[in-house]
Amino acid sequence: MPAAPRFERVCIAGLGLLGGSLGMALRERRLAGRVVGVARREATVDAAMSLGAVDEATRDLRAGAAGADLLVVAVPVLATVDLIAEAAGVLAPGAIVTDVGSTKGHLERAVPPLLPPGVVFVGGHPMAGSERTGIEVARADLFEGATYVITRPPETPPEAAARVAALARDVGAVPLEMEADRHDEAVARISHLPHVAAAALATAAARGDRKFLARLAAGGFRDTTRIAASSPEMWRDICLTNRDPLLAALADLETDLAAFRRAVEEGDPAALEALFAAGRRARLRVMESAPAEDE
Amino acid sequence: MPAAPRFERVCIAGLGLLGGSLGMALRERRLAGRVVGVARREATVDAAMSLGAVDEATRDLRAGAAGADLLVVAVPVLATVDLIAEAAGVLAPGAIVTDVGSTKGHLERAVPPLLPPGVVFVGGHPMAGSERTGIEVARADLFEGATYVITRPPETPPEAAARVAALARDVGAVPLEMEADRHDEAVARISHLPHVAAAALATAAARGDRKFLARLAAGGFRDTTRIAASSPEMWRDICLTNRDPLLAALADLETDLAAFRRAVEEGDPAALEALFAAGRRARLRVMESAPAEDE
Repeated sequence: MPAAPRFERVCIAGLGLLGGSLGMALRERRLAGRVVGVARREATVDAAMSLGAVDEATRDLRAGAAGADLLVVAVPVLATVDLIAEAAGVLAPGAIVTDVGSTKGHLERAVPPLLPPGVVFVGGHPMAGSERTGIEVARADLFEGATYVITRPPETPPEAAARVAALARDVGAVPLEMEADRHDEAVARISHLPHVAAAALATAAARGDRKFLARLAAGGFRDTTRIAASSPEMWRDICLTNRDPLLAALADLETDLAAFRRAVEEGDPAALEALFAAGRRARLRVMESAPAEDE
Repeated sequence: MPAAPRFERVCIAGLGLLGGSLGMALRERRLAGRVVGVARREATVDAAMSLGAVDEATRDLRAGAAGADLLVVAVPVLATVDLIAEAAGVLAPGAIVTDVGSTKGHLERAVPPLLPPGVVFVGGHPMAGSERTGIEVARADLFEGATYVITRPPETPPEAAARVAALARDVGAVPLEMEADRHDEAVARISHLPHVAAAALATAAARGDRKFLARLAAGGFRDTTRIAASSPEMWRDICLTNRDPLLAALADLETDLAAFRRAVEEGDPAALEALFAAGRRARLRVMESAPAEDE
């Protein structure tokens, strides 16, 4: 824990699960001189105050961001750029702007040109989301043990990225600095593709006879489709901002599914066993080296 | 709990997760005069005895089944028919033969012709599996709250199905009598399709850059691919014995995935949001009426 706050005035724009949890973590660990929250809806402003997620909250972005030396944007990906454009002019000199979105390449290209001289952008992606959304489910320990990706545009000095990485570590996360495009390709496969697959699977499964599906739904359906309950607006934006990597991953999934279909059509025992064994190996390979979590 | 055991001598052929757990439940609740286990491997015979899953265990199917008034076959689906053919002749007069397999139509057609007069077949499918297999993970409360499908071929009197349903209820499950073909169509969508999708998804996801995938794997990948860790042999057999319903479900999944791909290709926000919303609604519709479980 740092001897002095990492930042004087942190403005968190967007008080959902991530923004609210970050506010709670910053306050609980005294990492910021003051935490100011900005939300669109009055009810969210009230909830943030009563949950102790922020020191003060407002619906006025420019008032909330005024004089902040760190602006954390925690709104859906597509709203991020406009919001930064609006707030950039009122930040403190030398401020850092960061975000918590699931795609990074498009921000790295769009944000730096919007910033006044001396203000810099550092991309952030804490892998700590949930299919549950809103400040009601925010909690100070949300980031504990989570990988927190940090991306740095060429215009941004390494020291700024290091300050965001230090803050990520202070809220319990494990910072991982990587190139924005490498990040986007990896999350297309490990996160975005599973979300699309879960939604398509839930839709396809539910095309059957309703009378029996629910009675027969067990752990397999529940787990494979859990993330299909996620916010459609959020995932729409993620797909729109990570088009090419997602299309490459989707093409692979369609190929791998077609191989299963052919093996079922042909009643080919060896092919079926090999396909299931390949899926099992692939999963184990990823999970074995993944950060530990209760399986 | 019944005043007297439901069956005098129960033979359980196959001592994996389901067979072992059933033995434990029958013994713990005194539902059988005697529980005799049959396993192919000596190590399983030993484990069943030391775990208290059975009163006696043997590798000799005909010795174990001799005089049994209930034979429960708990081996992979494709091995079930041969095993029943071998044991049928030594059962007690009036015995009931049942199974715990994931597909029912093919057994309903194949098994009755193999049975001597007076011996009847009742299909059974306790929805209580796991991606973990083997008697080591068996437990007496495995069936607690689980749906236990009972199917009755035309040759079988309703009383025999009722006796198996009563036993299912006695081990804590919720029996559900339904037609074999309706069962197979429903599980193709709610269970078999998710298993195929999870395996294909794990394979497709892992085609990315290994260096980063594991670090970025979060709850979404873990949950959607959990059942990809299931036994390849077991799922090979399930696919082979439920061909047409599974192909119909797979065709729907391919259609629903292609719709996602087109929406991503075209960068169509409305289409993407509608597809994610449809997946979310479909899941909620199934889960809301599903048996309660810790979500």
